[in-house]
Amino acid sequence: MQTHLLELIKSEVRGQQAYAAGPSIAPIRLDANENPFPLPEQLRTEFMAALGRLALNRYPAPGSPALLDGFAKKYGISPDMIMVGNGSDELIQILCTALTASCILTPVPTFVMYRISALNSGHKVLEAPLDEGFDLDLTTMLELLETHQPALVFLSYPNNPTGNCFSQEKMETLLAKAPGLVVVDEAYGNFSGRSFLPLLSRHENLVILKTLSKIGLAALRIGFLIGAASLVHELNKVRLPYNINSLSQTAAGFYLDHEDTFLLQAAEIVKEREQLFQAMEQIPGIRPYPSDANFIFFSCLFNTNQVYAALCTQGIMIKNFPAVGHLKNCMRVTVGSKRENKLFLGVLERVIAKLGA
Amino acid sequence: MQTHLLELIKSEVRGQQAYAAGPSIAPIRLDANENPFPLPEQLRTEFMAALGRLALNRYPAPGSPALLDGFAKKYGISPDMIMVGNGSDELIQILCTALTASCILTPVPTFVMYRISALNSGHKVLEAPLDEGFDLDLTTMLELLETHQPALVFLSYPNNPTGNCFSQEKMETLLAKAPGLVVVDEAYGNFSGRSFLPLLSRHENLVILKTLSKIGLAALRIGFLIGAASLVHELNKVRLPYNINSLSQTAAGFYLDHEDTFLLQAAEIVKEREQLFQAMEQIPGIRPYPSDANFIFFSCLFNTNQVYAALCTQGIMIKNFPAVGHLKNCMRVTVGSKRENKLFLGVLERVIAKLGA
Repeated sequence: MQTHLLELIKSEVRGQQAYAAGPSIAPIRLDANENPFPLPEQLRTEFMAALGRLALNRYPAPGSPALLDGFAKKYGISPDMIMVGNGSDELIQILCTALTASCILTPVPTFVMYRISALNSGHKVLEAPLDEGFDLDLTTMLELLETHQPALVFLSYPNNPTGNCFSQEKMETLLAKAPGLVVVDEAYGNFSGRSFLPLLSRHENLVILKTLSKIGLAALRIGFLIGAASLVHELNKVRLPYNINSLSQTAAGFYLDHEDTFLLQAAEIVKEREQLFQAMEQIPGIRPYPSDANFIFFSCLFNTNQVYAALCTQGIMIKNFPAVGHLKNCMRVTVGSKRENKLFLGVLERVIAKLGA
Repeated sequence: MQTHLLELIKSEVRGQQAYAAGPSIAPIRLDANENPFPLPEQLRTEFMAALGRLALNRYPAPGSPALLDGFAKKYGISPDMIMVGNGSDELIQILCTALTASCILTPVPTFVMYRISALNSGHKVLEAPLDEGFDLDLTTMLELLETHQPALVFLSYPNNPTGNCFSQEKMETLLAKAPGLVVVDEAYGNFSGRSFLPLLSRHENLVILKTLSKIGLAALRIGFLIGAASLVHELNKVRLPYNINSLSQTAAGFYLDHEDTFLLQAAEIVKEREQLFQAMEQIPGIRPYPSDANFIFFSCLFNTNQVYAALCTQGIMIKNFPAVGHLKNCMRVTVGSKRENKLFLGVLERVIAKLGA
């Protein structure tokens, strides 16, 4: 294609790499923060029966009204305060698209889609490195708020990839001082037991994101945005009218009817997380950081590219990072099933022993 | 929410209404250009079996690689010239998002999502009314190209809602003269038998959209963009990494394996369209326009709001339009099954007879 045509594309788009969501290169996937447990057989049968009743030749219900009602009831809020998205990713994109080009503020390291979507929508991105304990650097963030007046602040709670919940007090200060919206992304909220939902009535600029991806239904791409009804009303103008296909809408309704099963799986993952953490602490050269999520962020005295490659060779995929800032020498492992965690620990020990020799 | 927060939202967003995709208010849906035929029972069983094998706790394959390969083979092009979208809607949005804010040009009336997505992305929208025969007004469009240098031209082929294919010669002139991309949306291409695919090699600014929504799988939200590989490469940076859920990816693969069945249904719809057209011509006060799509656009000597309401009361939903330009006194009916079309004709005749009395 001739250069002049490609130059019609925003420089912010041309200047970036596509999000690196690679294919599976090892059978044991501990890289994507998925729930390791499949749907119990009985639920699976009911689930398939529900899908079997769908008319595939008909458009999905626009705006996912049954899900709005169901989740509104679950959260004790009004349905007009909720929007369903094609994963939280779409909700982040809708937020960035709806706002006049300005700038957004995030701590770093954090979930990369905030930055990607902001750039694609023509925003500038302000980044405030986390402090040594992976908490917010409040002084820097307040200065950036004051100087640049960002329209959006994204806070991942608990934070991906560091795994911790930021100090609630600092977050409340940001909510009070931010000139624009503050998005609290609770993608991993099922593993932290904490939520900013009770603060919705106190901060009208608070927007909360949730998802079914980490609790066991990553295949469906279902996320939720919760915020002031007047904001949701405007955001709905940017949302594609049929953004959630019929199969995923039905499956998410099925989740609501059987949430207990999924919450039991989450509790099991939290238990496994603590055991995995303790075992990782025993491996020389590995330092796991405390986690409120379904993954463990850890630093490593050895070359992480070598560790990553050796694990892959042994059939285990975890998440490796570019050697930048807090991410230098760090990796992230998803809490898997008991069997997967044991396998991971065994292989990691052998790999480390070999590299250290 | 306080005004200053809502004012962070683009005026182009605040100034519009959300796309009016209403709920079903009548049992017979002839308003949304869906295929009236359900999946044959044998296919349905195979389809459910394919879905039953999916791991719902895992993320979908990023970028839908199996679909890229399958559709590339079908169209005889390279997989890197294709992108799969959450319906064509998402592909329109991706195009509008990727381009530096400029302006887009469309004929009117046409599919409304071009305008909505363009405004949401901060583009200006130039509209060129169709001529009396619903063909492109080439003189006006060339003037607008020359004066405003739009980054994008959207052409629906056949055009929704008028149902006709524009003159290919005029479209080729636009392709040759446009300073930016020209998108030919072939959502209804299965009913026209025409395509701009053979012209891809001749016009590097040509982008083609296709969808499975009209051929029988509206529930899935699967659209395709076909264009130069270097363009698709950039657009993939704007596409959400996991934009197509696992269930829809699997179902679309299933479509490829059983396309013959769907094409037979399309042929049946085309036959029904001709019969419906001839029958509508016989109704006094109704003027149907020739259609290359799976719907018929018609004008009506009576108050269309009254006709619409009377049809709804009798259980039939068709599409009514705001009384603007070419749409004044016009309505659109989807070609349904033989039984649905007969019902529609009977009710329409009675309604018209009553209003005319």
